[in-house]
Amino acid sequence: MVKNNNVIIQAEKQGSAESLYKPGLEGVVATRSNISYVDGEQGLLEYRGIAVRELVEHSTFEETVYLLLYNHLPSVREMKQFSTLFAKQRMLPQSVRHAISTFPVGMHPMVALQSGISLLQGEDYYADDVSSQLHNIRRCISLIAKVTAIMAAFERARHSEEPMPAQSKYSHAANFLFMLTGEPPDELATEIFDKLLIMHAEHTMNASTFACRVIASTKSSVYSSVSGAVGALAGPLHGGANERVLRMLFSIGHPDNVDSFVEDRLATGAKIMGVGHRIYKVKDPRAIILQEYLEKLIAVRGGEEAQNLYATAKRLEEAVEAKLGGKKIYPNVDFYSGIVLDLLGVPMDLFTTVFALSRVAGWCAHWLEQVAANRLFRPQQEYSGDHQRPYTPIDRR
Amino acid sequence: MVKNNNVIIQAEKQGSAESLYKPGLEGVVATRSNISYVDGEQGLLEYRGIAVRELVEHSTFEETVYLLLYNHLPSVREMKQFSTLFAKQRMLPQSVRHAISTFPVGMHPMVALQSGISLLQGEDYYADDVSSQLHNIRRCISLIAKVTAIMAAFERARHSEEPMPAQSKYSHAANFLFMLTGEPPDELATEIFDKLLIMHAEHTMNASTFACRVIASTKSSVYSSVSGAVGALAGPLHGGANERVLRMLFSIGHPDNVDSFVEDRLATGAKIMGVGHRIYKVKDPRAIILQEYLEKLIAVRGGEEAQNLYATAKRLEEAVEAKLGGKKIYPNVDFYSGIVLDLLGVPMDLFTTVFALSRVAGWCAHWLEQVAANRLFRPQQEYSGDHQRPYTPIDRR
Repeated sequence: MVKNNNVIIQAEKQGSAESLYKPGLEGVVATRSNISYVDGEQGLLEYRGIAVRELVEHSTFEETVYLLLYNHLPSVREMKQFSTLFAKQRMLPQSVRHAISTFPVGMHPMVALQSGISLLQGEDYYADDVSSQLHNIRRCISLIAKVTAIMAAFERARHSEEPMPAQSKYSHAANFLFMLTGEPPDELATEIFDKLLIMHAEHTMNASTFACRVIASTKSSVYSSVSGAVGALAGPLHGGANERVLRMLFSIGHPDNVDSFVEDRLATGAKIMGVGHRIYKVKDPRAIILQEYLEKLIAVRGGEEAQNLYATAKRLEEAVEAKLGGKKIYPNVDFYSGIVLDLLGVPMDLFTTVFALSRVAGWCAHWLEQVAANRLFRPQQEYSGDHQRPYTPIDRR
Repeated sequence: MVKNNNVIIQAEKQGSAESLYKPGLEGVVATRSNISYVDGEQGLLEYRGIAVRELVEHSTFEETVYLLLYNHLPSVREMKQFSTLFAKQRMLPQSVRHAISTFPVGMHPMVALQSGISLLQGEDYYADDVSSQLHNIRRCISLIAKVTAIMAAFERARHSEEPMPAQSKYSHAANFLFMLTGEPPDELATEIFDKLLIMHAEHTMNASTFACRVIASTKSSVYSSVSGAVGALAGPLHGGANERVLRMLFSIGHPDNVDSFVEDRLATGAKIMGVGHRIYKVKDPRAIILQEYLEKLIAVRGGEEAQNLYATAKRLEEAVEAKLGGKKIYPNVDFYSGIVLDLLGVPMDLFTTVFALSRVAGWCAHWLEQVAANRLFRPQQEYSGDHQRPYTPIDRR
């Protein structure tokens, strides 16, 4: 490290034109990982080497969680044990249930989630012992199961409703919808919500996953690491895009208004939400899948308003492609997910939280990978301030 | 970014011997900052260009906070306004006071702190608007003032005691001791605690500060960013060293046992706590200052036990220097701070939290710097897993 410090000091002393500073760590390989992979040219996303399209079509969120945590698909027996454990872990400790019931009504759901995760650690007295990978995985399963219960309990509490206890007969997706609304969820809603959870579960390096790994690198608990990731996801530059897409579609209002909207945006250089992606140079594979399910959902459930919203979105996609097709700007996963969540009856200010309920699986997988082969994150800074400023007494300032 | 992805894919395809992966981001300059500076060869630590020794000798924690947040020393008028604001902000919202009183008694104080910070955000409905630097600084002042109240309230709650309201006549250091114990703190204890807060307030890039900046880079709130930093500091590879030093000194028990302890440690390759530092190649400047104040404290307050503990520590320092002086391994800041905190009556499991109560000033300064000139942290990963694994139906696994 002395060497590195010297390099920096040297660079400063020489007033070197070429700074070693990598803004945003762009292009820097910060970690080695075998959890997920994206090929942006081909529009391919893999979890543990398996195409997400395959998982969405054939798997469940529970099985996907198993795959992400254990790096293999479960046998019948493994899946049965896992499902039982997962279902049992949905129950929140009494202290956390009580605390959630006292959260201020105006608290943002992401803050409620972060607070709930932090409070969960208060009931896990051995959380800071991360030496056993077996126990580490158990903790991840417990946390992934419980975040959904936290969210649902908060949503009910802020409407002065008692929490609904999870039902072991239901899947994870069905339980969330049930705990949120208190109504038995229908089959199609459950199926689509399950697909949504699968396709948001993991997506290589991004600010929240990276924050999770940085915290994990001090051998901090999974609660602390995931709570930090939730904080990063809450930032407007990270989560919340599907909510903004939905608001945009509402404001456009009708397919006939799309062309003038797009022209106006392009003329003023303003952003069109939900299109374009840092990595994907084709249509986001998750957007393609989501659109198929959205069409199913609309056919069964969609009233006039939903059909108008979807028609507006489709027209927008076409207009963007017509105008910007050459620039490889296509819909990303957020483009259709807002309409889906809205149709499923999820309140708009819970959208980012739903993302978190799914992504917690990926964060946990990264936490496990980090603590199992750890190296503390300790980058350098480039000092850009003054030196040897005097301490002037206050009466002479 | 396409380019960077291609580079990685290329490197993988070629099975390139030279990986682009930087474990722990060692040697990578992740940020540009003008908050603090360390010269490890000369044993110099500066905050905003002013030597920390100067600040410890002449300044107060409040003034140091001002310096860190505003990048200049306050005038008489500025200091007066700031002190008034700071003192007013110590009061916790009722919902947070109530929540703390219900925290499980066995909750780790760092978890209590993290939960309390998260809950504070629940009462600040505009926390996610970080566009005004004026408001951002106000929020930092409020948070720095309140973390101390959170900690003191939790310490009292777990002993079934009512929280002590802060007294505006006291300094920040005096208030912490007062709110913790309910007793008016004596002058020497307050003075030394104040010095301790000053010298722990900031220390360039490290895992917790880096975590804070990664979360901040999504334009997330100061609460989320600092809460993530607390999570990182809670990890055993980051905080908690002074507690381990004190336990080690207790276990050595007497200066006469030091030589055999050191020989045993060197023979078995086990670590001696509180000596050696990644950056400092001389005695940590903070350890030098701390030792001076510790001697004062012992002269006034120290009984036989404290004198024995200090004599053991000094003997250990000599023994390490005699055996390892050539390797540039000297006491770091944690070497004497545990004895000081113990003498001040701070319970051992609060030591890391006391560190956090001070370092929150540095985290806030980094949060301000990050959101003011932001670039989202989004490094690359090197994928080390398989591709195109098939999804095998469960009955054929």
